[in-house]
Order: sequence, then structure tokens, then C-alpha cells
Amino acid sequence: MSLLVVGSVAFDSVQSPAGRADEILGGAATYFSITASQFTSVKVVAVVGEDFGEEQMRVFTERGIDIEGLERAPGKTFRWHGAYAGDMNEAQTLETQLNVFERFSPKVPAHYLDCEYAFLANIDPVLQLHVRRQLPKARLVGCDSMNYWINGKLEDLKKTLSTVDVLVVNDAEARMLSGQQNLKLAAAAIRALGPRIAVIKRGEYGVGLFTNGSSFFAPGYPLDEVRDPTGAGDTFAGGFMGHVARTGDTSEANLRRAVVYGSVMASFAVEDFGLARLLRVSRQEIEGRFQEFKRLTHFDV
Amino acid sequence: MSLLVVGSVAFDSVQSPAGRADEILGGAATYFSITASQFTSVKVVAVVGEDFGEEQMRVFTERGIDIEGLERAPGKTFRWHGAYAGDMNEAQTLETQLNVFERFSPKVPAHYLDCEYAFLANIDPVLQLHVRRQLPKARLVGCDSMNYWINGKLEDLKKTLSTVDVLVVNDAEARMLSGQQNLKLAAAAIRALGPRIAVIKRGEYGVGLFTNGSSFFAPGYPLDEVRDPTGAGDTFAGGFMGHVARTGDTSEANLRRAVVYGSVMASFAVEDFGLARLLRVSRQEIEGRFQEFKRLTHFDV
Repeated sequence: MSLLVVGSVAFDSVQSPAGRADEILGGAATYFSITASQFTSVKVVAVVGEDFGEEQMRVFTERGIDIEGLERAPGKTFRWHGAYAGDMNEAQTLETQLNVFERFSPKVPAHYLDCEYAFLANIDPVLQLHVRRQLPKARLVGCDSMNYWINGKLEDLKKTLSTVDVLVVNDAEARMLSGQQNLKLAAAAIRALGPRIAVIKRGEYGVGLFTNGSSFFAPGYPLDEVRDPTGAGDTFAGGFMGHVARTGDTSEANLRRAVVYGSVMASFAVEDFGLARLLRVSRQEIEGRFQEFKRLTHFDV
Repeated sequence: MSLLVVGSVAFDSVQSPAGRADEILGGAATYFSITASQFTSVKVVAVVGEDFGEEQMRVFTERGIDIEGLERAPGKTFRWHGAYAGDMNEAQTLETQLNVFERFSPKVPAHYLDCEYAFLANIDPVLQLHVRRQLPKARLVGCDSMNYWINGKLEDLKKTLSTVDVLVVNDAEARMLSGQQNLKLAAAAIRALGPRIAVIKRGEYGVGLFTNGSSFFAPGYPLDEVRDPTGAGDTFAGGFMGHVARTGDTSEANLRRAVVYGSVMASFAVEDFGLARLLRVSRQEIEGRFQEFKRLTHFDV
């Protein structure tokens, strides 16, 4: 079933101990939609500038991603420049140029409005809510956020949270949003704000899924080398939501599989710079690593 | 089957956001043996001072722990004073009084010498090796270490490691010992030093088990409150080694169950100060939480 994502499309420049890449296609909506397109049909709502060309469009359209909602505005595309060092768990932002993203006002094409699955990637919670309200048929809506909005627009974020089913954040954001240091209590506090499903990402340590009375943990996939962690969280969300949308199954058991598919996709994403690995990963590799996650966590009782 | 442990017995004073406890029974060999006694028969090699009384002895003997190897030396018992704050993952040591532990020279009673399972808790690697060499019949020997020995006695530690089957350390120690930031590579480097099994503890994030060509991850058990993390690592080791000794099964599948039993026991340990929770946990509670770990990590493929 079809899956809408609203978020950023950007040109990223990234440095890490493994090397560097300049002006490569990135942004939350990009990582999300490229990933989710492995699972289901995807529709994007985002904004790009006049410097966003046919070559970039084709990355989406070749994968059947609907970009009617990809608005082209006068000016330049959003640019982000970041660097990773040490444990690679956190980026240091060297430069952000919002450009056309600064006045982004999401326009949802008419034929997107009956989407049953949607993800509100990390943008202003006012805009997230604006999009959410245009999706009356949505069966499962996920959203992301970040410290910037938790600090600066908490009341708006809470309004958005009261309308969504899933919040996907990292552990630092979960703690900041909830005021709870303890992860279990943080998840409970987040669920009290609206989302019945809290998904808390813990970088290399994996992901926790908190639903009604149940917790589930998937480890991070042990890689020999992490080259570029950029987009790992959005890739996770794309795999998670993509699997749910493909199966149309929001049961606890299937949400667990969705967490594992999200973890699988994120583990591929970080193996190379930008989208490089995600653009060449095969469905067979995805299923193979899904089985490896089973072997990583299985024990006989 | 019987399990020998050599390590410290101490009086601890602990402060945490949940409260404080003064001069309570602690030390690595204590946490290890109290825990392992839930699984198998345990023999202790350690040293205490003249201030170690009948009341403390009874904590061991009531659980059938053999303390013939618990030497009583002139002077005072080892004392440690530590505090926890924030995320509770690391203690701040406020004071250490080695006392009789400073000149500890482990004496292994004759009837301990045919032990098939042993754990060399965190003491001078020279002493660990001295004990290891007296256990020719050992089927599985584990050891722990810490930054102090990795920095100060690396060559001695490497000699000890070349004689043991399992190293149980935390992630910071694994990285320091191996010189590898990446956990998978750190485990491989550790295994190249001798131990065919590397167990890497990651605090609240759980434990990784690395054996020949296989990795296994168990999450930390999500608790509402951690009151005192002291001894969690030694408790983990006691559950891990205790389960292996009880079953006499060193297969990969059983080592995974051992990791879960270790995690179960550590999750109980931190629920209260010192040994309090471990001294009142029932076998039924242990099995119940073992099943909960299955529910925490299970997904259908």
C-alpha cells in the first residue's frame, strides 16, 4: 500500500575517517523514500531548488517513487555539511544552508490524500501537523523530530504527536522530550503524548520498540566498518514504515519485523557514503541480512 | 559441576540517586559466587581481614559456597567507596583502601584443584595466571580485567589471556585492550590473544558474545529504576559461568543461554543496593525473567 513521506531533500557534503563526499544527494525524505521503495510504492512531498536536475529526479523516478509532490522553488536546494569522528555516533554540523527549505510549505497533491501510511520526517512540527491533517484515511502515521524542535517548539510538537501513531527518535531526543533519563520511562512518557508506538534508536546499540505493555530490542548489526552514518535514522524509518505499508499489518509481531527491516536497511546505508549502498542493495541481500539478524539474537529457551 | 572463583571480597560504600549504603558486603568474588550459587556449587579463593565476621561468612555458607579458600589475614578487609550519577553506567570511585587485598596471594586449597570451571575475576593478571596454572582439569576458564591492568601490566595480561577460554570485559576495556574502536574488530583482536570466547558488556545496552564466526547480542533488561549498578558485571559473569558449569555444555547454543542468564542476574542485582536483591531472588523469578528476555528479543521470520 502506498506510503507518503514529507521531509527534506538536500545536497550533503560529508567527511568521515573513511573519506569524504561532496554535494551528494541526501535529506531525510530522500533516504526514507529510496529505502521504502524496496518495500512499497512511495510518494514524496518536499522542496528542491533550481539546481536540482534531471539526474537527481531520476534517482527517485527510476525506483517508481512518485515525485509529483516534489516542488521546485526559485533558489538553491538545502545543503548540509557534516563531519564524523571517533565512534561515528554523532555528526558535527559544519554548515547548514536552508535555501529553499527555509520557506518550505508542504503541498500535498490531490492523489496523495488517500494515503494509508505516512511518515512526517524531521521538519517544523507545524508543517508536520499541516500534512497530517490532510490524510484522513491514514491507518498508521509515523513522525520524527529533533532537539531543535523539542527545545524551540515543544507545544507545537506535542500537538503533532497527539495526532500520530508512531514516534521514531534517538535516545537523546527521547530523553529530552520526556524529561526521563530511564529509557523505559521515557518511552512511557512519549506514549502518553499520543503515539501508541515509540521507536527509540540507539545508534550502534540498535533499536527499542515500545508498544502497549511490550518492549522489543533489536541490536545494531555488527559491521567491520561504518563509512558514513548520514541518513541512517531516516533509512531505518523507511525500512520500518515500508515493511508496515507493504504488509498492511500493524500487529505487534509485524512491528517487530518492521524494526528488524529498518535495522537491516540502516546497516546497509552506513556501509558507504550517501545513498551509494542503498542504491545497489538487492532484495536478496535485504532478506539475507534479515535472517542474519535472527541468528544474531536467537537463543533456545 | 563445581565452579571456582578468585577475586576480591570487600566492604563497599555506595551512593546513587536512589540512596546510599555503607560498609555493605561486596567485591567481585562475592557478587560472582552469590550469583553462581543459584546454578551450581561454588568455591571461593579470596582474602579478608580480621573485621570480616561470622555474619559475612554466613552469607556464603548458607548458600553452600565453599569458603575454605577464603583466607583471613591480619588487618582490615578491602574497602571501596563509590558514587553513581546521571546515566548510572559508570561509578566514580571516591576512595579505595586495599588493606589485606594489597598483598593478596591466592592460595588454592587442595580439593579445589580438580575444578572443571573457573573464573579469574579482576585482579593482577600475574595472580590470575598463578591460579590458572593450578587448574589442569579446567574445561572452561573465564577471566575479567580492567583499564588499570591493560595500561600497567599488558604483557602479563596477555600471558593470562593466552591460557583462558573466555574474556568478559566491558566495551571500553575491549576497545582499550584491542586498540580497535569497532566492537566486532575489537572482539576479533581479543580472540586472537587467546580466549576463543569474547563477552563484551555494554552497560544498559546489553551484552555481545563473539565466538568462532558467530555473534550474539542480548539487550539490557528494561528496568523502571536502577538503584545500584555495583557488581553488575561480576553478577553477569556469575550467571554466565554458573549456567555453563551447571549444564556442563560449552556449545554455542548454550553459551547464548548463559549470556541471557548472566543478563537476567545482572538485571536483578541493580534493582537494589549491594547484594540485597540477589540474596532474595528466587529460582522462579530467574526463570521468569529468562522467558521475558525471550519475549524482548523474539521476532518471527
